[in-house]
Amino acid sequence: MEAVHETSQTNGLSIFALGGVHEIGKNMYVIQYAEDIVVIDCGSKFPDESLLGIDLIIPDISYLLDNSEKVRALIVTHGHEDHIGGIPHIIKRLNIPIYGSSLTLGLIKGKLTENGLIKQSKLNQIDSDSHLELGKLKIGFFKTNHSIPDCLAVVLHTPEGTVVHTGDFKFDLTPVNNAYPDIHKMASIGENGVLALLSESTNAERPGFTPSERLVGGHIEEAFKKAQNRVFISTFASNVHRLQQVIDASIATNRKLLLLGRSMVNVVSVAIQLGHLRMPEGMLIEAQEANELSRDKVAVLCTGSQGEPMAALSRLASSSYRQIQILPGDTVIFAATPIPGNERNVAKTIDHLYLLGANVIYGSGTETGMHVSGHASQEELKLMLTLMKPKYFIPIHGEYRMLVKHRLLAESVGVNPDHIFIVNNGDVVDIHGQVASQSRKVDAGNTLVDGWGIGDVGSVVLRDRRHLAEDGIIIIVITMSLTDGTILTGPDIVSRGFVYVRESEVLLGEVNRLVRHTIEDLQENGSLTNWNILKHRIKESTGKFLYARTKRRPMILPIIIEV
Amino acid sequence: MEAVHETSQTNGLSIFALGGVHEIGKNMYVIQYAEDIVVIDCGSKFPDESLLGIDLIIPDISYLLDNSEKVRALIVTHGHEDHIGGIPHIIKRLNIPIYGSSLTLGLIKGKLTENGLIKQSKLNQIDSDSHLELGKLKIGFFKTNHSIPDCLAVVLHTPEGTVVHTGDFKFDLTPVNNAYPDIHKMASIGENGVLALLSESTNAERPGFTPSERLVGGHIEEAFKKAQNRVFISTFASNVHRLQQVIDASIATNRKLLLLGRSMVNVVSVAIQLGHLRMPEGMLIEAQEANELSRDKVAVLCTGSQGEPMAALSRLASSSYRQIQILPGDTVIFAATPIPGNERNVAKTIDHLYLLGANVIYGSGTETGMHVSGHASQEELKLMLTLMKPKYFIPIHGEYRMLVKHRLLAESVGVNPDHIFIVNNGDVVDIHGQVASQSRKVDAGNTLVDGWGIGDVGSVVLRDRRHLAEDGIIIIVITMSLTDGTILTGPDIVSRGFVYVRESEVLLGEVNRLVRHTIEDLQENGSLTNWNILKHRIKESTGKFLYARTKRRPMILPIIIEV
Repeated sequence: MEAVHETSQTNGLSIFALGGVHEIGKNMYVIQYAEDIVVIDCGSKFPDESLLGIDLIIPDISYLLDNSEKVRALIVTHGHEDHIGGIPHIIKRLNIPIYGSSLTLGLIKGKLTENGLIKQSKLNQIDSDSHLELGKLKIGFFKTNHSIPDCLAVVLHTPEGTVVHTGDFKFDLTPVNNAYPDIHKMASIGENGVLALLSESTNAERPGFTPSERLVGGHIEEAFKKAQNRVFISTFASNVHRLQQVIDASIATNRKLLLLGRSMVNVVSVAIQLGHLRMPEGMLIEAQEANELSRDKVAVLCTGSQGEPMAALSRLASSSYRQIQILPGDTVIFAATPIPGNERNVAKTIDHLYLLGANVIYGSGTETGMHVSGHASQEELKLMLTLMKPKYFIPIHGEYRMLVKHRLLAESVGVNPDHIFIVNNGDVVDIHGQVASQSRKVDAGNTLVDGWGIGDVGSVVLRDRRHLAEDGIIIIVITMSLTDGTILTGPDIVSRGFVYVRESEVLLGEVNRLVRHTIEDLQENGSLTNWNILKHRIKESTGKFLYARTKRRPMILPIIIEV
Repeated sequence: MEAVHETSQTNGLSIFALGGVHEIGKNMYVIQYAEDIVVIDCGSKFPDESLLGIDLIIPDISYLLDNSEKVRALIVTHGHEDHIGGIPHIIKRLNIPIYGSSLTLGLIKGKLTENGLIKQSKLNQIDSDSHLELGKLKIGFFKTNHSIPDCLAVVLHTPEGTVVHTGDFKFDLTPVNNAYPDIHKMASIGENGVLALLSESTNAERPGFTPSERLVGGHIEEAFKKAQNRVFISTFASNVHRLQQVIDASIATNRKLLLLGRSMVNVVSVAIQLGHLRMPEGMLIEAQEANELSRDKVAVLCTGSQGEPMAALSRLASSSYRQIQILPGDTVIFAATPIPGNERNVAKTIDHLYLLGANVIYGSGTETGMHVSGHASQEELKLMLTLMKPKYFIPIHGEYRMLVKHRLLAESVGVNPDHIFIVNNGDVVDIHGQVASQSRKVDAGNTLVDGWGIGDVGSVVLRDRRHLAEDGIIIIVITMSLTDGTILTGPDIVSRGFVYVRESEVLLGEVNRLVRHTIEDLQENGSLTNWNILKHRIKESTGKFLYARTKRRPMILPIIIEV
């Protein structure tokens, strides 16, 4: 189980994740046959609260860098952040050709342009009918449904057999825009034999069949009809079919539409341009026009359904949006279920909206009818497994318990339990002569992005940030004579984030005396020969004193200057 | 609406919250009639993630301190932290007599003992039949149901009329331990006329009637019967009726019981001692005995149902509990729904348990049958309003949207909409001659507890902690000659939480040169006359440089020492 990253050890087929298993986020899967590597997706993930100051987490691509001459392509299944968010950070170090559908590429282009990388990048548009030959790998695709249009599943024909990667999917049999899933193609792929299936597990805990996106449209239109004044509706910007249904409800109720939030404006513009969104001429208005129109003639489509503090809806809720205000009697719709971790921020936003006198429609999508999931529930996961009839199954895209539940579903539809591999990021499934085994590992883990820095914030820096966050810092500066070891100035005590200094002069005065005392003690013992010993003693005595007095443990940083 | 805290301005009846409205937590309500003040509850609340390093939030009691000679009593409705957690911190500054039921006092005593305050405190045990006369206030009580036994609602008879405070409640008509609610007493109080009702709003968003605690017992027993090996069950330690049902299920399935977690051991011991828990002789075992017994003869009752990182279940899940381990085939039951904000920690714990091979029963209480709420749903809130028939209604104990929903419920059962007051903490409802009005405010807000310090961490300290947490700190120390303003030593650059120093020598070297340059510039211009200007310039130039190079904004702290 040693980490292998200097080179690949296989001439057969190898399958592994560099991100996306034992987690939701930063999806990246690798399919390697001999000298040919294809990467599927390159996502990012938001840090949890313990990773202070970190902006983003992306996959560790050491393996790909060490085998860069073999990497043929990055195929992107769809345009969600957990599948495309790592691209700008990774393309700088490994400029591989990128393949994606029209909308997926449209969203990637936006990211690359923002990061000044668009010129050097190699983008290739594909669709579900495309066929690629990359080294010994022949690659096809099929259409699936999800909460963003233009999703592709990937079918990799290798000399060992066929590997299918579903991407994110659900089965929507009455899809908006008639974007039907390729069920007959899936059946035919299954009929021809699938060696290994990688299928997503997000909703593996959820019984039943995820409802059709079309249901949401009906509820939106109903609410738009009932609303006496303005309607504000917030959803994920990338859910283009949802946006279409908001546009349709606005048309049906004779409202003009104002867009708020950078990503909303961006996605709508890309989606219209690429033909994924039908927006009548003159439908979109600016804030000024919205303010001039009668209140029952205006709908506002905005970001912020997750209570993100800087998003449009949160700013509207706290009345810090200058261009337009929510007034008593306006209706606000959350067309989204809070993602775990966002509940408190969403609740805070709802409270602020109530304080403004708005009529708020909120709660889980099941309760309000204003949201359906984009992911396959248990019956759909079983349907995919049944269509594909894979010899080997690797549940992907999920936290551990979801992978376990997905394994149980696979067993229930007849997959051999010994042929199911629950892997962690970096665990390699090797298939030789139709026989799969899992024993080796490649490097995989979290690469932390902080500002421009990629991977330069490690455990020491994070530990310091946590320490600083908890109780602040006390800096003790002393200048000492190089010649006779006497104190020239100080100790000067500076604190930040510890106590309010003006009210704690007595306490800091005591620290001052304690430090002097510590130095004098060492001088008397003749042990003041080493600044490191002195620093250690100051840290120790000051730390003990402050904990006894305040029950806090600030970082203590003695700085000794020799003059 | 000026804050009034030097003295009270009323000779009639005043009602206000010092904590508990527009929030869940730190409940504290004040009922004042002329010269007599009674305080109901004294809770604490956990800080959200923005309050770095803060341990606890308690109510601001300036008003009580300024009117200390009038404060007759603190009446505590029940023993939950959001009703008793502030007591040790507040009793130090205002040692008022405390009244509570047997279990409530039992839990308060534990807190006071821990804080070395038990000797000085004035504790008075009451029950639902008690009558108190505190100045002009005559006080009675009635029993309610909740997720902790021995809860009391408070009935305050004042010369203006009767004020009822429900405490936390539900109507459990088939309660564990036959602890029935005093419905007939409630009806009689309502019959005799209630001037003002303060009723809790936690579940005002939830339709229907909260199920009886007794239902959970059946599901627990079923799961205990099905389990082939050990059962670990985690719930809130204070839910004594739940604990009783776990004991009963253990007896029914012939299992001995091991308790894990400090608060579980503590509550069980207090509850047995006070007669609230029936535990057969020889039922409780220690870890060693549990390890010696056959695995189907052991049940473990533990803390950690909310995924709290240091609680027993989390430590069991991460295999860091030395005394006993969870083994493949063991069953783990979460007898609790995650409280908003705890979802991620709970999910992490479940994943770890699956990795150990446990069979985990988790999810919302509605799904698993392993949890019911302790709070009244909409039909029960309507029942309380109907029983009390109050002239005035003040919804309490809830975030703003819950108060709004509770108002709608009150209107639906016939309370005059003009007689309903949704107040914020500190808003005073004054009642003179049966007429209520709301116009004045007393000081109310969050008092932050950090270690021993109460209220000494304010916005400046918190802002610094957030800044430090985000990108760390860079300290720049320069010693300068007092005589000629030349640099004697430095700049010495020390950083913490910014970048890993060994890998960033070049960057910090550039900062060094930049600071020298800044000083030289000022010297050449003859403007090096004021250390504050120099510090400002260093901050500015270093900040700009580092942002351009790293896109991070560490705190920059120049320290200039004159020698």
